[in-house]
Amino acid sequence: MSRDPLLPGLVCPLPIHRHSHVQMAHGGGGRLSQQLVEDVFLPAFANAALSARHDGARLEFGGLRLAFSTDSYVVKPMFFPGGDIGTLAVNGTVNDLAMCGARPRVLSCAFILEEGLAMDVVSRVAASMSEAARAAGVALVTGDTKVVDRGKGDGLYVNTAGVGVIEHEAVVGPMSVRAGDVVLLSGDIGRHGMAVMAAREGLEFESNIESDCAPVAAPVLALLDAGVKVHCLRDLTRGGLASAVVEIAQTSGLHIRLEEDALPVREDVRGACEILGFDPIYVANEGRFVAFVPESDARRAFDVLRTHAVSEGVVRVGAVSERPGGLVTLRSRIGATRVVDMLSGEQLPRIC
Amino acid sequence: MSRDPLLPGLVCPLPIHRHSHVQMAHGGGGRLSQQLVEDVFLPAFANAALSARHDGARLEFGGLRLAFSTDSYVVKPMFFPGGDIGTLAVNGTVNDLAMCGARPRVLSCAFILEEGLAMDVVSRVAASMSEAARAAGVALVTGDTKVVDRGKGDGLYVNTAGVGVIEHEAVVGPMSVRAGDVVLLSGDIGRHGMAVMAAREGLEFESNIESDCAPVAAPVLALLDAGVKVHCLRDLTRGGLASAVVEIAQTSGLHIRLEEDALPVREDVRGACEILGFDPIYVANEGRFVAFVPESDARRAFDVLRTHAVSEGVVRVGAVSERPGGLVTLRSRIGATRVVDMLSGEQLPRIC
Repeated sequence: MSRDPLLPGLVCPLPIHRHSHVQMAHGGGGRLSQQLVEDVFLPAFANAALSARHDGARLEFGGLRLAFSTDSYVVKPMFFPGGDIGTLAVNGTVNDLAMCGARPRVLSCAFILEEGLAMDVVSRVAASMSEAARAAGVALVTGDTKVVDRGKGDGLYVNTAGVGVIEHEAVVGPMSVRAGDVVLLSGDIGRHGMAVMAAREGLEFESNIESDCAPVAAPVLALLDAGVKVHCLRDLTRGGLASAVVEIAQTSGLHIRLEEDALPVREDVRGACEILGFDPIYVANEGRFVAFVPESDARRAFDVLRTHAVSEGVVRVGAVSERPGGLVTLRSRIGATRVVDMLSGEQLPRIC
Repeated sequence: MSRDPLLPGLVCPLPIHRHSHVQMAHGGGGRLSQQLVEDVFLPAFANAALSARHDGARLEFGGLRLAFSTDSYVVKPMFFPGGDIGTLAVNGTVNDLAMCGARPRVLSCAFILEEGLAMDVVSRVAASMSEAARAAGVALVTGDTKVVDRGKGDGLYVNTAGVGVIEHEAVVGPMSVRAGDVVLLSGDIGRHGMAVMAAREGLEFESNIESDCAPVAAPVLALLDAGVKVHCLRDLTRGGLASAVVEIAQTSGLHIRLEEDALPVREDVRGACEILGFDPIYVANEGRFVAFVPESDARRAFDVLRTHAVSEGVVRVGAVSERPGGLVTLRSRIGATRVVDMLSGEQLPRIC
């Protein structure tokens, strides 16, 4: 449904179909995921922290500001070039805390194991988590293990929840985005999704595409420490760049204009996407984020992000304006502008 | 293996078998669960908070003391007399925080849904969680949903993690237990396990056994507020009363003596256990806990616990002494004493 009379042709005359049964796309990070949250979870759990629709909740206890976030990981296969379900489970939650402007401190770790899984697999995943936690500067402090019957799981699922400390006054979130902000993207997109897809399907591309899975808390905290006015941060996981910025546009009620020419996609990733029919702006990443900062702070933000390996490829990919509010548009190489929507189906199931 | 020369006959000449593949009992809360933690997770994740072997981690950020805990829930069936997977997921984590002496404040909530699950089921579980959270005084502030392929789940799994604030100086945990402490049990045992078992197997007992699933933070915080020197608290979930006190005996290196006569078990629960061959001291509860307090504080603790409905049936079930260290013994009705061990196999799989 159009949110602005500038684009009246986008009004949809039919209500969006709501599903009576769970579909894969309800876990895809796109429109069906959003519907599930809006139809089922937000009404049931209504509270201010949840309604902020950010990567994590912002809390305050006794004057201390904290961020709190959780994700379950069901990636298939469990091991892929550049990482595994363990590195993903640590970096995913570390990055969600960083997106709240928090310094990640501790993680919980809860396994659901399938009866009959080789214990070596559990050990390998635990070792990966330990190594990723060390690299990200967080401690795994509490946990749980459940076992489900053979055939009622898929080897191993893992959940992490994390707590971080917010050391700055900045309220980082979609509601802080302002017209005039520029959109910085921390590096090339599409690698994680294509690496998992290739591993799952046994595809061989000319070059070996590795996941970009990495912790991004260090560059994000460096931005805040440098005094850059960071309005919003979002990591580009399920649903990719497109779903992330569409959600921010909808929540902030502003217009985000992206430049296709500016989006960095590696040649091998672009080729793999073309072969498989994927659009890189919808493909999941695990070490990439967008930062919304005022135009006046863009240069300083660039300088900070370039000094960190994980964000040295930072580019400016767009800007924020008032109208048409709630929409994301993408200007293509040949100058045409199209509206970018959330992923409506499921492009890449079980990517994280 | 005997831990004390007073019981030399208990020395086991063979090493305990360690399994190469995951078995149901690795999630049962008994000996195999303990082995998994000791062999795989503790070495990988080594840190002080995890090594405390408590229901949650005790943290300190900027002078603020917090408790942090997580559990995944895979109970089968999802709905049973007295509760469902949603009430369990809220009360289980709320109670783990309470066992750290913390006031539960916020929960995260992460679903793993199986493709094809009726959306009504998701809504019912979300409604149960919302209601349970209200009753326990916590807010569900952040969440996640993943979907796995049909046949790769079992309807719905849910993880909650929780954060609570520790408002008292007392360090509540197994290491604070002292010889001379008495063991208080908050009410009758065995109801949750038998309610789930009956629902799963379609058994009909003479009376309808309902789960005891309930939040126990209120009586626990009242104990601390009243100045009772609470040394240790533990809720009696997977593995039941026996596994909980055995773990405390092992961690504290002290001897816990239980009196069988003092253990409250409802007649219908006792009957169901006899028919099915279960021992009530190993059956899971979800609204019961033990409190270790000095003998001199026992009367005051009783008075406090009796004023809360969830713990009005409190009884004294045992006491702590120095030796034989690390062991739990149970004196039977006819005066015989036996050593109580952890559950070594899996008595009741997927009970929570």
